[in-house]
Amino acid sequence: MYKKLKQNVLEANLLLPKHGLVTFTWGNVSEIDRNLGAIAIKPSGVSYETMQLDDIVVLDLDGNVIEGKLNPSSDTPTHIELYKAFNNIHGIVHTHSRYATIWAQSGCNIPALGTTHADYFYGDIPCTRALTDAEIRHEYEKNTGKVIISLFQEKKIDPQAMPGVILTSHAPFTWGKNALDAVHNAVVLEEIALMAIHTLAINPRMAIDKALLDKHYTRKHGANAYYGQK
Amino acid sequence: MYKKLKQNVLEANLLLPKHGLVTFTWGNVSEIDRNLGAIAIKPSGVSYETMQLDDIVVLDLDGNVIEGKLNPSSDTPTHIELYKAFNNIHGIVHTHSRYATIWAQSGCNIPALGTTHADYFYGDIPCTRALTDAEIRHEYEKNTGKVIISLFQEKKIDPQAMPGVILTSHAPFTWGKNALDAVHNAVVLEEIALMAIHTLAINPRMAIDKALLDKHYTRKHGANAYYGQK
Amino acid sequence: MYKKLKQNVLEANLLLPKHGLVTFTWGNVSEIDRNLGAIAIKPSGVSYETMQLDDIVVLDLDGNVIEGKLNPSSDTPTHIELYKAFNNIHGIVHTHSRYATIWAQSGCNIPALGTTHADYFYGDIPCTRALTDAEIRHEYEKNTGKVIISLFQEKKIDPQAMPGVILTSHAPFTWGKNALDAVHNAVVLEEIALMAIHTLAINPRMAIDKALLDKHYTRKHGANAYYGQK
Amino acid sequence: MYKKLKQNVLEANLLLPKHGLVTFTWGNVSEIDRNLGAIAIKPSGVSYETMQLDDIVVLDLDGNVIEGKLNPSSDTPTHIELYKAFNNIHGIVHTHSRYATIWAQSGCNIPALGTTHADYFYGDIPCTRALTDAEIRHEYEKNTGKVIISLFQEKKIDPQAMPGVILTSHAPFTWGKNALDAVHNAVVLEEIALMAIHTLAINPRMAIDKALLDKHYTRKHGANAYYGQK
Repeated sequence: MYKKLKQNVLEANLLLPKHGLVTFTWGNVSEIDRNLGAIAIKPSGVSYETMQLDDIVVLDLDGNVIEGKLNPSSDTPTHIELYKAFNNIHGIVHTHSRYATIWAQSGCNIPALGTTHADYFYGDIPCTRALTDAEIRHEYEKNTGKVIISLFQEKKIDPQAMPGVILTSHAPFTWGKNALDAVHNAVVLEEIALMAIHTLAINPRMAIDKALLDKHYTRKHGANAYYGQK
Repeated sequence: MYKKLKQNVLEANLLLPKHGLVTFTWGNVSEIDRNLGAIAIKPSGVSYETMQLDDIVVLDLDGNVIEGKLNPSSDTPTHIELYKAFNNIHGIVHTHSRYATIWAQSGCNIPALGTTHADYFYGDIPCTRALTDAEIRHEYEKNTGKVIISLFQEKKIDPQAMPGVILTSHAPFTWGKNALDAVHNAVVLEEIALMAIHTLAINPRMAIDKALLDKHYTRKHGANAYYGQK
Repeated sequence: MYKKLKQNVLEANLLLPKHGLVTFTWGNVSEIDRNLGAIAIKPSGVSYETMQLDDIVVLDLDGNVIEGKLNPSSDTPTHIELYKAFNNIHGIVHTHSRYATIWAQSGCNIPALGTTHADYFYGDIPCTRALTDAEIRHEYEKNTGKVIISLFQEKKIDPQAMPGVILTSHAPFTWGKNALDAVHNAVVLEEIALMAIHTLAINPRMAIDKALLDKHYTRKHGANAYYGQK
Repeated sequence: MYKKLKQNVLEANLLLPKHGLVTFTWGNVSEIDRNLGAIAIKPSGVSYETMQLDDIVVLDLDGNVIEGKLNPSSDTPTHIELYKAFNNIHGIVHTHSRYATIWAQSGCNIPALGTTHADYFYGDIPCTRALTDAEIRHEYEKNTGKVIISLFQEKKIDPQAMPGVILTSHAPFTWGKNALDAVHNAVVLEEIALMAIHTLAINPRMAIDKALLDKHYTRKHGANAYYGQK
């Protein structure tokens, strides 16, 4: 019943080391089947090299394990919060990928500086506020999700046009229309995070023009997209 | 009839991932056969891993598809403009290679700082002005070509001695005597772009002497070149 | 009698090039069997590519060779001092890994800037004072160990919660519950050292909140840890 | 007669791409047999992937080709000058390796900042003055050698204790007791050049203590060396 979902999640997790996004076990991918009400996710602390289909854990939206013998990723409550709040996303990735994590540690938004960014992320990639001590001590992972969601709601950011976020002093989350798409966005985020650091070192006052941001985002997304094959 | 042209373009495109110049499908190479009046170019959004000879699209200089079932690269109008204006070039490469893109995003020329640069690019590598909103909204890719061409005309830059350019807030284009040569120049551009960032971080006031620039460029190019085998 | 110990040390040494932590022979791993009173360590200046089980040198805690025909690592006296002073560690790694060495050369502590750091190192990673000329000229490697130990004692740092140190103008040491664990910590140290440089370049005033540092360290370590499988 | 010499040079040249020191054909290694009065060197502009033993060019110390059908490296006159002036060196490497070239382009000496540096280079790695226009225009490669030699003579630098140099606006040369040793020093130079950039970015006022520089250099070199196997 969950075989296809688990397979998608296994394959997407194995793309993390392939794309150089993870050290050791520092990353996890999940996918949701909203019809089945089921989320499949990486088990906690298991190596990508040995991971098998049956290691993938399936949970319901209350966090109860439906299938699988291992502990799910310790970040599972964050994934669940995001799936509940953002109805149009079906895959989520969390890594400590190098350059996105650097921006997260700096506590600054990643500014939109070029068309590579604009092709995928429609504007600056937001950095959350720090969690309060109380939010950290009790239900930390769930509160991590809540802080992301409230940021997107307050700033009226559309999670489909902004498929990622960075957490102050922590690391990035990305998402997408499925697990594979969420990994794709994680790769892009890492690349633009690296480029943004050096761009600002050369010229701290640059930003992309609004018209160019619009052009490149809509060239790849929405009704009038004309990039790629039909 | 177009088999050799398509083969050159396929091989040159496959060199982009080999040299680490592309993430996903972010790059395209074309070549022109001026006798046949035909340009072969990468299809839009197709993965390098699966690309076949018959995926390569052949167009005339008005942008009409002569051969091939896929959409050509969305950047095709830029290639066409450049081939029309620069008579001595026969291959063009566009990528979002990391360090050349960083310079493009910074909006600054890449200064000539050493002999590695001088061996291939005779002077600072120019960065275009930003396109106007009108130029972006209507015929964006064609206007991208026009902005490059007017820069080279206004500054009296010879496209043979300066086989590349960076586009403000976007990324580089390089060209050459064929597709392979254009890829070669894309690799060099990426390397010198990286080195220029760190050189200026150590010593912001450096520039190469004119005599050394001349010496290295003419050692590899023109009638008195003496690098390599005859 | 020492076969298992030597095997652990051989395997751990071979992980150094696998994880990109060493150039040529610039690194060494040891492990101690406290019941046997024996330390196994890499031989000095031997290439990882050709290293065999019988090349591993076994010594007692006075530095006398028990087994093996080759000279032990020239850094052996440092390892011995650390094993004598830090009772709970059983593996030690010394490398000149790139970014940890950069911090060592800078003479600055590596500040705790994010959860990646907090997952493994409970606070800023300390940098030793410079050795005096006398300490350098006589028993240099032994004094290197003594300077590390006195720093941990003076600052009341627990070597289990802080499994590494950087030596001013030199390079890092890491340790752990065995040789493999010490290598694991060396990999983490290298990654967080790299990220710290760029984080501070973006925002020189960042530091991780104490509550978040506590949360992530205790999520992975101690009685209430809940990361990974039981 | 020259087979062993050519073989050494071929193997040493092939190490350049293996160690990531070269892009395309941007590097060359030579070795001298002082008894035979013969220098073997890489041919100019030939790819490392296709290079064969018979492509290696053998010359006498006046630059006359003794064996081989191809043009020798265009940098051959620099190699010859160095062999004539520095009697104790028997292998020379020239590359445009990334970080050593960055320092060369900056026109600054590479300061001795740590023991990795001190293990191989006894002091700051010197950067030559710029060549005059006259020196560039006539016998450029020979004058490159002369500028290196006069720098070492004026500053009383021993080429055995300082097995490398960087050329302003150009790139590094390294040397050693044979071609392989010169490549080894080229690898070390690249690593310490990279580390020096970031070290100074963290702490611009650092330098290694004289006693530590002495200790590490003499630990690996000279009569009292005790690193490695006998």
